[in-house]
Amino acid sequence: MSTQLDPIDADLLMTLTEHDDPVFALHRGGKMEVASTVPVADADDLSLAYTPGVARVCEAIAADPEVAHEYTWVGNTVAVITDGTAVLGLGDIGPAAAMPVMEGKAILFKQFGGVDAIPIALDTTDTDEIVETIVRLAPTFGGVNLEDISSPRCFEIERRLIERLDIPVFHDDQHGTAVVVLAGLYNALRLTDREPDEVKVVISGAGAAGVAITKILRSAGVRKISVVDRTGVITPERENLGEVKQWLADETAGWARPGSVSDALDGADVFIGVSGGTIPEEAVAAMAPDAIIFALANPQPEVHPDIANRHARIVATGRSDFPNQLNNVLVFPGIFRGALDVRATMISESMKLAAARAIADLVDDDELSETHIIPSPFDPRVSQAVARAVTDTARRDGLARRPY
Amino acid sequence: MSTQLDPIDADLLMTLTEHDDPVFALHRGGKMEVASTVPVADADDLSLAYTPGVARVCEAIAADPEVAHEYTWVGNTVAVITDGTAVLGLGDIGPAAAMPVMEGKAILFKQFGGVDAIPIALDTTDTDEIVETIVRLAPTFGGVNLEDISSPRCFEIERRLIERLDIPVFHDDQHGTAVVVLAGLYNALRLTDREPDEVKVVISGAGAAGVAITKILRSAGVRKISVVDRTGVITPERENLGEVKQWLADETAGWARPGSVSDALDGADVFIGVSGGTIPEEAVAAMAPDAIIFALANPQPEVHPDIANRHARIVATGRSDFPNQLNNVLVFPGIFRGALDVRATMISESMKLAAARAIADLVDDDELSETHIIPSPFDPRVSQAVARAVTDTARRDGLARRPY
Repeated sequence: MSTQLDPIDADLLMTLTEHDDPVFALHRGGKMEVASTVPVADADDLSLAYTPGVARVCEAIAADPEVAHEYTWVGNTVAVITDGTAVLGLGDIGPAAAMPVMEGKAILFKQFGGVDAIPIALDTTDTDEIVETIVRLAPTFGGVNLEDISSPRCFEIERRLIERLDIPVFHDDQHGTAVVVLAGLYNALRLTDREPDEVKVVISGAGAAGVAITKILRSAGVRKISVVDRTGVITPERENLGEVKQWLADETAGWARPGSVSDALDGADVFIGVSGGTIPEEAVAAMAPDAIIFALANPQPEVHPDIANRHARIVATGRSDFPNQLNNVLVFPGIFRGALDVRATMISESMKLAAARAIADLVDDDELSETHIIPSPFDPRVSQAVARAVTDTARRDGLARRPY
Repeated sequence: MSTQLDPIDADLLMTLTEHDDPVFALHRGGKMEVASTVPVADADDLSLAYTPGVARVCEAIAADPEVAHEYTWVGNTVAVITDGTAVLGLGDIGPAAAMPVMEGKAILFKQFGGVDAIPIALDTTDTDEIVETIVRLAPTFGGVNLEDISSPRCFEIERRLIERLDIPVFHDDQHGTAVVVLAGLYNALRLTDREPDEVKVVISGAGAAGVAITKILRSAGVRKISVVDRTGVITPERENLGEVKQWLADETAGWARPGSVSDALDGADVFIGVSGGTIPEEAVAAMAPDAIIFALANPQPEVHPDIANRHARIVATGRSDFPNQLNNVLVFPGIFRGALDVRATMISESMKLAAARAIADLVDDDELSETHIIPSPFDPRVSQAVARAVTDTARRDGLARRPY
């Protein structure tokens, strides 16, 4: 062995690790593979799938690049792209360490949406470099799912990519979360016979999810929103807010008042936690009757469901071991399934609203209850309904390249 | 529909096209997909493959990035990357139109090497941008196969990537071709009882393949090489050669003499065509006894085998419909299979030489004949033998990260 290399005895390491942990055993060798969908068994097969036959397909695409979406897998692919800066609750762990999450996302795309998703981990955290890299990759994919990129860079990266590309770009940590929260809120309000413009909402967290939730709730007609970060309620009076928090302050001005999260929760109807902090029980107890609590931090909700249930009528988390799991997997497979099916040029705010409504509507009136406001991720109707909402909206709004 | 969009009636187009052409029918929807290798059927499955379980794998990789090659699919993946500038014989048809070839390559990687290859088409032809883009993608892949990038940019791009990355980088149009040519030459010489340092070789073509063939033949001990481009034999006397052709002139100096391809072929033992031009029959007739002709241009060989066989003892082409098909698919799947298996830091010249020898040695003495100098691409021993040659060489030369 050359001395400059530092080999590890990986077999031994793995044996020790896997012995104790089924997660490591499952992950050995990764969680996905590519597969051919055409035969490659003999020279005749090769002459069709590879040279010389393939040249005719290349020439057809050269004459009309749109044809690539019919005769290559590009039309069914989505890049799941991260820079590893905001992975789960782990934070900035780097691109290599983010790959297991990207792979997990990719297999969920396939399982729930039939989408061929490719995990991509970028070795740069520079906004310009990330944008340029993804623009250069664009002919490879039918869509781009941004993932686990830290705030506030994620906003500018998504905005610039949407401007530059004519394929759908979707930052799931923002919009997947926002859509599933709105779906849950629609049904929580249905159950408690209230309308969006009546309720007082407190959002804890001013990162990717908090910003997108604020935006979609405003689009859905919610008027009384307070957004809270570590310092307290975000209002225009605060100094040095930065571009994103200034937007939140402007967007919630007229309702939000300076104060702590406890101040904001006093008499509030809805709490939406996407922060990872902890809310004191007294603050929860001070909410209005029929309170709705979505404590979505993973693995530790901002309020434990056992505590929340003492004071609230409806409690949801991001966890699968409590009722009402609000999970992005209800959203992103169907969003991209629909967008790819009609060659949508973007994922519009209208598509997201339609997707939220479609998810909510899958819970019938006779099923709807305090512990069942959202369908299961394993309900096969979910991604179909979301896809249909996206395709219908895309066609209606002239954002579908494929009109049939 | 919005007026700024230009939808095509793709269904109609496809129906018409596919009606006439099995190639288009085969290519509809592309030739590959991704698949999960782990179960995703219920919440328990998700808790292992996705949150919360996946976080432990992320943390292990964050602590030691090398672990990513064991617990993600990265360790078995190769990016097949093009900029669409030199696709088959079609030339600069752009990245979208190159995708069918990249997909074809990817399914061959899987079929013959068990490698998960991802086709990547880049929307830039700028050398710096291509290098930077691939460097940023590196955490995503276990290796990089450059493909159909035009000469001379391909040389600098590969060289800079090898310098920057510690994963294998391999420009198949150069080295895949060079290895299979050397394998064929080894056996042609074995059959005709000659040694590399005896024979006079004429290489037609000074692009990616011609340069790499010159290099590997020199490494294999061939001393009498003339390289011919459209202008004639490349010698130091010629003006304005450029960096690459100057290298060819220097490398062949002492043997190569100014003149035409016909001049060079007069008395030559071996012709290797990777140019796409046409060689006059008189020039072929003037070669030495027991002449060896590898006319590898596709689909039209530089000399048609029917003509070549009148004058040469051994004739090979790149085509599957004639004997002795010299095709890169004999090389690249095994090269990367071996490199990934030992986590090789690069593909060295020694590995390529060993691979060529391994391919040649698969043809036993009693099988070896004028019409059988090379194994079939469908012989399952080929990629195994190439992979073994690569892993053995990597271990011997200290280029294997994984020593076991």
